[in-house]
Amino acid sequence: MNDSTLAAAKPAVVLLSGGLDSTTCVALARELGFEVHALTVAYGQRHDAELAAARNIASAMNVRHHKIAAVDLGEFGGSALTDDIQVPKDTPHEDIGKEIPVTYVPARNTVFLSMALAFAEVVGAEDIFLGVNALDYSGYPDCRPEFIRAFESLANLATKAGSEGKSKYRIHTPLIDMTKADIIKRGTELGVDYSLTVSCYDPGGGGGGGGGDGATQACGRCEACALRRRGFAEAQIEDPTNYQTGAGAS
Amino acid sequence: MNDSTLAAAKPAVVLLSGGLDSTTCVALARELGFEVHALTVAYGQRHDAELAAARNIASAMNVRHHKIAAVDLGEFGGSALTDDIQVPKDTPHEDIGKEIPVTYVPARNTVFLSMALAFAEVVGAEDIFLGVNALDYSGYPDCRPEFIRAFESLANLATKAGSEGKSKYRIHTPLIDMTKADIIKRGTELGVDYSLTVSCYDPGGGGGGGGGDGATQACGRCEACALRRRGFAEAQIEDPTNYQTGAGAS
Repeated sequence: MNDSTLAAAKPAVVLLSGGLDSTTCVALARELGFEVHALTVAYGQRHDAELAAARNIASAMNVRHHKIAAVDLGEFGGSALTDDIQVPKDTPHEDIGKEIPVTYVPARNTVFLSMALAFAEVVGAEDIFLGVNALDYSGYPDCRPEFIRAFESLANLATKAGSEGKSKYRIHTPLIDMTKADIIKRGTELGVDYSLTVSCYDPGGGGGGGGGDGATQACGRCEACALRRRGFAEAQIEDPTNYQTGAGAS
Repeated sequence: MNDSTLAAAKPAVVLLSGGLDSTTCVALARELGFEVHALTVAYGQRHDAELAAARNIASAMNVRHHKIAAVDLGEFGGSALTDDIQVPKDTPHEDIGKEIPVTYVPARNTVFLSMALAFAEVVGAEDIFLGVNALDYSGYPDCRPEFIRAFESLANLATKAGSEGKSKYRIHTPLIDMTKADIIKRGTELGVDYSLTVSCYDPGGGGGGGGGDGATQACGRCEACALRRRGFAEAQIEDPTNYQTGAGAS
């Protein structure tokens, strides 16, 4: 698709976390001809690296709109991503995804999709993209296809446009059956710059504090880093991630 | 139920807006034996009167917890409750509820219930109370029973506790088939102090600004005021609301 078709493109809301998966979703939504309205939900993350990455990605990919909307999920506690619970390191690869991880944020995707639905209704979009991935993240209940279908049904009952029959909401999860390697290969074909993306649950050094030197370093040892490293290795594409020195490849 | 049974009471999350309906829900949840964890969502309302009312009500009703959690729905625009769209006044009573009103906030109850679900999962509650009312608010798509049932299905797919079969979420809407008069009668029986509650879409004077003198005045002319006034009249209970001088009863 070229720039001359952008004016007539249908709007879509893409949930953009700043990670590898959601960034690939932006590229896929554009490839399908949508005009991308990116929504980043700031939900009390322990570090700002993801938000900074989302800003950089939205700018580099020239999306139509990028909205950062805050929600106080961190207030509720209950997750290693918003609380002081220790992020697990060096989990054996075969154990990743077997249990619901401590990084699970209560009802996160329900809240994110709800906010995306509100944004979609305002910008007149019927299409919402969410970069969930059933293979790598099977431990999260709100990444499963049955959850996504249930949300789609809800969306069409919940909204003015849906209930008046003017809109038919669709929740797109183009990555849901892809491996991390497949995602990286597809995104690379579409020109995604993965050096802008952040996957690490504990970036910038041990203890969860921000690095402060501007250059975010990935720990290389949390489950998100492990999945990312293996994805690039399997895709046989060079991993542009800035891992901490001494964090050996698994 | 007396205080000695409170320690063993099951927790429930009650969405508390500071209005008449949600306050009655707090009283009904307690009457059913639940320990109330009240959640007030600050979503970019144009006035703080509702939040102040919610705080006063939570304190007066001695709930177990009161959490105020912010979400940036106001950022998205699209509603007279968060934008500068004019709140309609003096709508003929027979026309209220016929159309989806301009005070409709996109996907509001979806977002509120999602946040309540996150809170419920953290505090270990399986029960969520929402004060929607199908008769008076028929114009809002996300107040209908089919929407509520769809959210209940979603909740049991979306959460760690639900997906592991450890919890069975229930969304309670005890007011859904009650008239405003019935709600006021029932709440009065349960000792609710309705003078603490705020219904008005435009409190504290014209133009949507806050009153600033501490005593919130209801406009007496918006649809929410009209429904409230008629509810007290039909219930034959004295209306404790502080209406602006000159706002005659309809």
